[in-house]
Amino acid sequence: MRIIIFGCGIVGRSLLELLKVRKKELNISYGLAPKILGVVDSKGFAINTEGLNIDEILRIKDLGRSVGEMENYGKKGAFELEILENIEFDLLIDMTPTNIVNGEPALSLIKRAFSLKLNVITTNKGPLALAMPLLLELAKHNNVSFRFSGTVGGGTPLLDFAKKCLMGDKILAIRGILNGTTNYILTEMEKGKEFSEALREAQVKGFAEADPSLDIDGIDSASKLVILANWILGKKITLKDVKVQGIRDIRVKDLEDAKKKGKTIKLIASVNGEAKVEAETIPKDSNLAVSGSLNAVSFISQYAGEETIIGRGAGGKETASSVIRDMIEIRGLMG
Amino acid sequence: MRIIIFGCGIVGRSLLELLKVRKKELNISYGLAPKILGVVDSKGFAINTEGLNIDEILRIKDLGRSVGEMENYGKKGAFELEILENIEFDLLIDMTPTNIVNGEPALSLIKRAFSLKLNVITTNKGPLALAMPLLLELAKHNNVSFRFSGTVGGGTPLLDFAKKCLMGDKILAIRGILNGTTNYILTEMEKGKEFSEALREAQVKGFAEADPSLDIDGIDSASKLVILANWILGKKITLKDVKVQGIRDIRVKDLEDAKKKGKTIKLIASVNGEAKVEAETIPKDSNLAVSGSLNAVSFISQYAGEETIIGRGAGGKETASSVIRDMIEIRGLMG
Repeated sequence: MRIIIFGCGIVGRSLLELLKVRKKELNISYGLAPKILGVVDSKGFAINTEGLNIDEILRIKDLGRSVGEMENYGKKGAFELEILENIEFDLLIDMTPTNIVNGEPALSLIKRAFSLKLNVITTNKGPLALAMPLLLELAKHNNVSFRFSGTVGGGTPLLDFAKKCLMGDKILAIRGILNGTTNYILTEMEKGKEFSEALREAQVKGFAEADPSLDIDGIDSASKLVILANWILGKKITLKDVKVQGIRDIRVKDLEDAKKKGKTIKLIASVNGEAKVEAETIPKDSNLAVSGSLNAVSFISQYAGEETIIGRGAGGKETASSVIRDMIEIRGLMG
Repeated sequence: MRIIIFGCGIVGRSLLELLKVRKKELNISYGLAPKILGVVDSKGFAINTEGLNIDEILRIKDLGRSVGEMENYGKKGAFELEILENIEFDLLIDMTPTNIVNGEPALSLIKRAFSLKLNVITTNKGPLALAMPLLLELAKHNNVSFRFSGTVGGGTPLLDFAKKCLMGDKILAIRGILNGTTNYILTEMEKGKEFSEALREAQVKGFAEADPSLDIDGIDSASKLVILANWILGKKITLKDVKVQGIRDIRVKDLEDAKKKGKTIKLIASVNGEAKVEAETIPKDSNLAVSGSLNAVSFISQYAGEETIIGRGAGGKETASSVIRDMIEIRGLMG
């Protein structure tokens, strides 16, 4: 399986680490023999149609430098999409940062890959939040595989659970906590900390971004909800179809009042007809009342009842493990 | 798909109901066109190689009578396994009651089916708890499919989650609440009810059997643990390899003491090297601290972290829905 990787941040490097450490096992157990023909980061790229050496990629990234500086195969500067047309490969893995305004550069990259009949895995919510119905159609039209397990739930297989394990059932509604940062903040506020203090803590612990507005204004949750709704419920929606509210207005007093009634406040993303993200007051013993940076999602199905999955929603290694699951699946479909 | 059904209790009848109501949809969506050639209950059987009428089966069962009394095709008395040899069919579905002493009559039935190269679905924990390593080998040896999703978690796809959604990962340990009756009792005792009162309530609500010892002595949990350990962790164990403790010794005072420390007591089945079932004191905000008759299982995986699934662990319709998922999967494997 010949691969070009876009984005070499925490997830990208975790993926390369896993592919290195698990090389033998992935080959023996799943017939997965990935060859990395190219790596693209924000400052350059490296290409070798015979396959790049993973150790060398990791070494240069560990030095804080661009793969464009790699010996023999590196080139500094922007990667032009036309280059893709001159390399024969099977799979493009997009792990570039999320851009929720226009999805770029990932959106154009994925579209171009489809037009070149390439399979695509992405961990980037931006293109899906903004154009998932179109991207699913394009993948189908071009008869290629498109997987994005890492976009929702990190390593927790939320998308697969509904598709693979509830096959034969019908999922009627979905509701859950899809953002670990806001859940961490609300959990700390419940203990009496002010919003700003809890947020600062989340930033120190690495949960929240320097600019945490995507998290606390509910946009990240809404993006993931769009992906769940399209993939599992067959909706054709994008971010603009979700009614979004964040947690900026929640006060410690609100959480105290809720606690007195055996309840708590959580930022819940739900789709049941309407798609929305809003702070809801729910019972303390609800399955969704998980604490810390956990995610939790309930699937309400017609026959099997309600099922809830709880897991970490982020993490480099965890998200990279979901990319490997997607690779195994695409490998199976390639025959 | 030509089917013979053994056992026509709540699960069996729920399955027939679902196959009737969902007939068109199952055919269109999954190519599933089941034909019921035979039904066997405790007092007789009915066979028609052209296919029995589901409405007629349900009608006679609703009258509290045996299928052996059905017009034209019914026959009262014991079903002799030799009869199977004279009927051409594809799938045997065993929904007979659990016998944890020797697994019979289901154990002999399943073995015979394998020797006749028949695919088998069972919702009966007995044969698996007592002889799962052997049964898996026999199915493999005879090149037939053997599925048992309904034995653990009712409609909640616990077995599939680990196998299908965490493919490519490695599950290191499993721990969870696998019995809804004991969890209901412990939840009520936490509210101050005595064991005997809580048990009586569970019986009235239909959670517990008239003889609830399999539940409260931990045998039911241990049986399900055997199935999880064999299927997901590749262990070769049976019920005798599980260290089992029940909840008879738990007092309201124990739960009160735990509560004061922000904890609660749950009957936890776990396998991590050793397989055991025992009452454990766990934090109130643990993902496994679910209340009422719910089940909850955590899978600790090497790469994706820890994931917990919560759902109803029983119910006729729910368990029947898991049989349908197994049927769809076997249909796919039959090509």
